[in-house]
Amino acid sequence: VCGADLILLATPPATIVPTALEAAKHAGPRAVFTDVGSVKGAIVSALGGALPRFVPAHPVAGTEKSGPAAAMRDLFRGRRCILTPTAETDPEATAAVREMWEAIGANVVLMTPELHDWVCAAVSHLPHAAAYALTGIIGELAERWPEIYGLGAGGFTDTTRIASSHPQMWRDIFLLNRQAVLDSLDGYLRHLSALRALVAAGDAAGLEALFARMREVRARALQGTG
Amino acid sequence: VCGADLILLATPPATIVPTALEAAKHAGPRAVFTDVGSVKGAIVSALGGALPRFVPAHPVAGTEKSGPAAAMRDLFRGRRCILTPTAETDPEATAAVREMWEAIGANVVLMTPELHDWVCAAVSHLPHAAAYALTGIIGELAERWPEIYGLGAGGFTDTTRIASSHPQMWRDIFLLNRQAVLDSLDGYLRHLSALRALVAAGDAAGLEALFARMREVRARALQGTG
Repeated sequence: VCGADLILLATPPATIVPTALEAAKHAGPRAVFTDVGSVKGAIVSALGGALPRFVPAHPVAGTEKSGPAAAMRDLFRGRRCILTPTAETDPEATAAVREMWEAIGANVVLMTPELHDWVCAAVSHLPHAAAYALTGIIGELAERWPEIYGLGAGGFTDTTRIASSHPQMWRDIFLLNRQAVLDSLDGYLRHLSALRALVAAGDAAGLEALFARMREVRARALQGTG
Repeated sequence: VCGADLILLATPPATIVPTALEAAKHAGPRAVFTDVGSVKGAIVSALGGALPRFVPAHPVAGTEKSGPAAAMRDLFRGRRCILTPTAETDPEATAAVREMWEAIGANVVLMTPELHDWVCAAVSHLPHAAAYALTGIIGELAERWPEIYGLGAGGFTDTTRIASSHPQMWRDIFLLNRQAVLDSLDGYLRHLSALRALVAAGDAAGLEALFARMREVRARALQGTG
């Protein structure tokens, strides 16, 4: 990293801070640092003001696959890349990182590390928890009736796709974003319990209204129209 | 339906029984009846032995879309079609329905209505509940921060795809399969609470082991190797 202009840290989330500090010892004074970690608050807090040319970043793209064979051309084109610079971040470094992401087609969005972690807990970390628990149900039932394997159709395949993600990476994400993940899980348990109550009560009108509302919310979420 | 050899009921789940009984008044004595409903026990119970030539069926295929524009050539090719004939079902009728599904490329599987409903609660109805609740979280957060719309990446899109399903159809499915859906939801809440406890305790080894196990379970579930 001695002569590098831009140092991009794409290591597992828990290793980003020590790797950045180690790299900083060898980098030149004008080097810009950035990362691609899915959690930002813990990384920003741990680095403090130690690296003003570190620009925290999270390109919101990827699949459940990992390793070199899972590389995809144009993975970031048209996708959002969230930057979370703080008051201590050098604006020139932020501009350089923004330029890099825009050059490969990403749409750069700025927000605080706290908002980033709260949003990502809901739209990304919680869906992973949901997928792990859905998979857990099938694993449990398969102990009594192994033929259940292979009976899932598209709904099961899609809702659990991200349960095939990298275990170490998701261990780190859940722990680095612990409080927001716990809050999201609590909200999720509340929504599931409300749905359970409608089913238990046989509330046909309530279920239909809820399902119709969820279809609308999802359509808005995908359009991104707000 | 007067001169029909085979009458296929593809109406919303709650209307299958009354529609079958009404059609039976006009059909010939050799007519075979079948359906495509996602719940079997409630339909079989309600019909009792009234229609021995009714063969309960559930082709396990489809998408979240509905209406004629969502039609897909080869939708059933290579997919499972579950038949749940009982002791009262005419074996000749079962053979005719099996032949129809095999002719369009489906793999026919036989099981009891009870096993069907228990399996489908886990691999299909529960994933729908999970998707509705995940969408509910986003709808709730959007009230405070509408920009959350559009920030979900592939994980959110896939885990919630089936929340865009037909509200009336899913109202019927949840209510017709009420007990199995409630049991599945209770199991799901238990798995989520166990995951929550690992996060709350900061149990890195426990989370990594769980995630690695879930990745294996999902791989087996997709391969259908048991």
